[in-house]
Amino acid sequence: MSVPHIAVIGGGAWGIALAAQSARAGAAVTLWMRSPPPPGTRRLPRLPDIEIPPGITITHEVPRSADLALLAVPMQTLRDISNRLEINAPLIACCKGIERETGRLPLDILAETRPGHDRGMLSGPNFAIEVAQGLPAAAVLAAADLTTARTMAALVGTATFRVYASDDPAGVQLAGAAKNVIAIGAGVAIGAGLGENARAALITRAVAEIGRLSEAMGGRATTVAGLAGLGDLILTCTGRGSRNYSLGLALGAGERLADILASRSTVAEGVATAPALLALARRHHVAMPIVETTARLLSGEFDVSRARDLLLDRPPAVE
Amino acid sequence: MSVPHIAVIGGGAWGIALAAQSARAGAAVTLWMRSPPPPGTRRLPRLPDIEIPPGITITHEVPRSADLALLAVPMQTLRDISNRLEINAPLIACCKGIERETGRLPLDILAETRPGHDRGMLSGPNFAIEVAQGLPAAAVLAAADLTTARTMAALVGTATFRVYASDDPAGVQLAGAAKNVIAIGAGVAIGAGLGENARAALITRAVAEIGRLSEAMGGRATTVAGLAGLGDLILTCTGRGSRNYSLGLALGAGERLADILASRSTVAEGVATAPALLALARRHHVAMPIVETTARLLSGEFDVSRARDLLLDRPPAVE
Repeated sequence: MSVPHIAVIGGGAWGIALAAQSARAGAAVTLWMRSPPPPGTRRLPRLPDIEIPPGITITHEVPRSADLALLAVPMQTLRDISNRLEINAPLIACCKGIERETGRLPLDILAETRPGHDRGMLSGPNFAIEVAQGLPAAAVLAAADLTTARTMAALVGTATFRVYASDDPAGVQLAGAAKNVIAIGAGVAIGAGLGENARAALITRAVAEIGRLSEAMGGRATTVAGLAGLGDLILTCTGRGSRNYSLGLALGAGERLADILASRSTVAEGVATAPALLALARRHHVAMPIVETTARLLSGEFDVSRARDLLLDRPPAVE
Repeated sequence: MSVPHIAVIGGGAWGIALAAQSARAGAAVTLWMRSPPPPGTRRLPRLPDIEIPPGITITHEVPRSADLALLAVPMQTLRDISNRLEINAPLIACCKGIERETGRLPLDILAETRPGHDRGMLSGPNFAIEVAQGLPAAAVLAAADLTTARTMAALVGTATFRVYASDDPAGVQLAGAAKNVIAIGAGVAIGAGLGENARAALITRAVAEIGRLSEAMGGRATTVAGLAGLGDLILTCTGRGSRNYSLGLALGAGERLADILASRSTVAEGVATAPALLALARRHHVAMPIVETTARLLSGEFDVSRARDLLLDRPPAVE
């Protein structure tokens, strides 16, 4: 069998990690960046502790074809970058969120910009640095059918980075989008001093409300209760490394959103996704109280003194 | 309406917190301890930062009757203490685990030792110190029927400590027992350096395997995906305050179990529950790979070098 060629689009932390993982899976890897470092540089700014393995070509020229292209770019740039991609390859979206202007999910955007190519979405509880280091992790690869999903999963996965196939792209995409919003809410709860009990209850309730949206949009609730939903929520809402969670922490402690954003060079996807997700929920008549409160905290409509609403809104009488 | 009388049995951290919460809910509260402090003492050793509110009577005499008795005692002492309780009151088990010698769950023990009394189980993501402080939290009260559960929940719950009624005592009890075992496994994963991605995947898989046991024993999987299961797992496997998690951390870092136990005065319920839970799973023909690996790490059958088995055992091919 010939060595497969995987193109990773995007030289941020997740792109670097996926390039390292793809090389570990046995592929020849091209890592595309808009502005590559000088030739010979094997450490990149977004993950400076990781030395890029020798089998990976870092370039600003998009390859013409590949066995797989992984798009590890910020959600709000996915359409633009996908539009410019002149690559003949099955495509995997590796970003989580909703396009602000259109309300579109990642695979909708790939369908519109690169019709005729197989599409999948990779998602799971995956801090980039740990995947880059080769620590054990698991993720989900969702496509419209299981055969496509399995083929894609087999190219990227290894015994240490386990990639499970799924035929529920709606559920996986919604779970990925929502978890960044919920992570901001969880950060607010902790930042405002509500405590860890409150955060645990909030995450639990969030799984239920995202599951309802998934079902309303043709996905499954069980997907949301799996790695791409619950697993990613646990990681993002409790882990050391989430941009969305730390943004929530600062918001909960009373900082202004504009000041927090101004002090950062990285993207917290949940900020743009929150209003888009809320709009999606309303369009599908699904109550998402935690998403709604978080979106209102972000828009400035709610003050941080309303942080308790993250938990106490419209509770069920029976568990 | 007259003021209800709630008796809290056990002066550990959780007993103190439940006494404070019951007082907040408007009850007259008796807090029973085997060895109460000198009269006038309003701080107890297990939660020294909390001043016991004036409405709470601390005593070593069990009241003859009460509107509710909350048993906040270590799981392995529940039978003995319940046997000696000469109180005429509905009983709520507030401990999580399985009786080592018999494999019995808390409500089985109450049924055997105090027949003829209404029984319920209180469980949820609740660090005692935060409940004692009055921070927001949520829990589940499960009884054989919803009417009993609702009546009990109304006596203990408030707007800040929300108690949801459930008629799935099997699911709530199993979830509570299992989460202490899983917390040890999660601690091992982190202590052994597997990382936060691995821990998030482990917790997600744990919810699935506990759900299978719940269904096999007449409970519901959705209960395990709620506050008493998932919520409590999130708290216990990621929070600062869990005894079981910190025991796992030490075990994962290579300490010997006997040394860890010798250095502690508190009870990590998961150590006694792990083999009992594994036996229960086998009796019901349910595969619980994470529980099994954790039990084997605790028994010394597995070395910490096998920590990766917590994650990599028998994975499903499809998520």
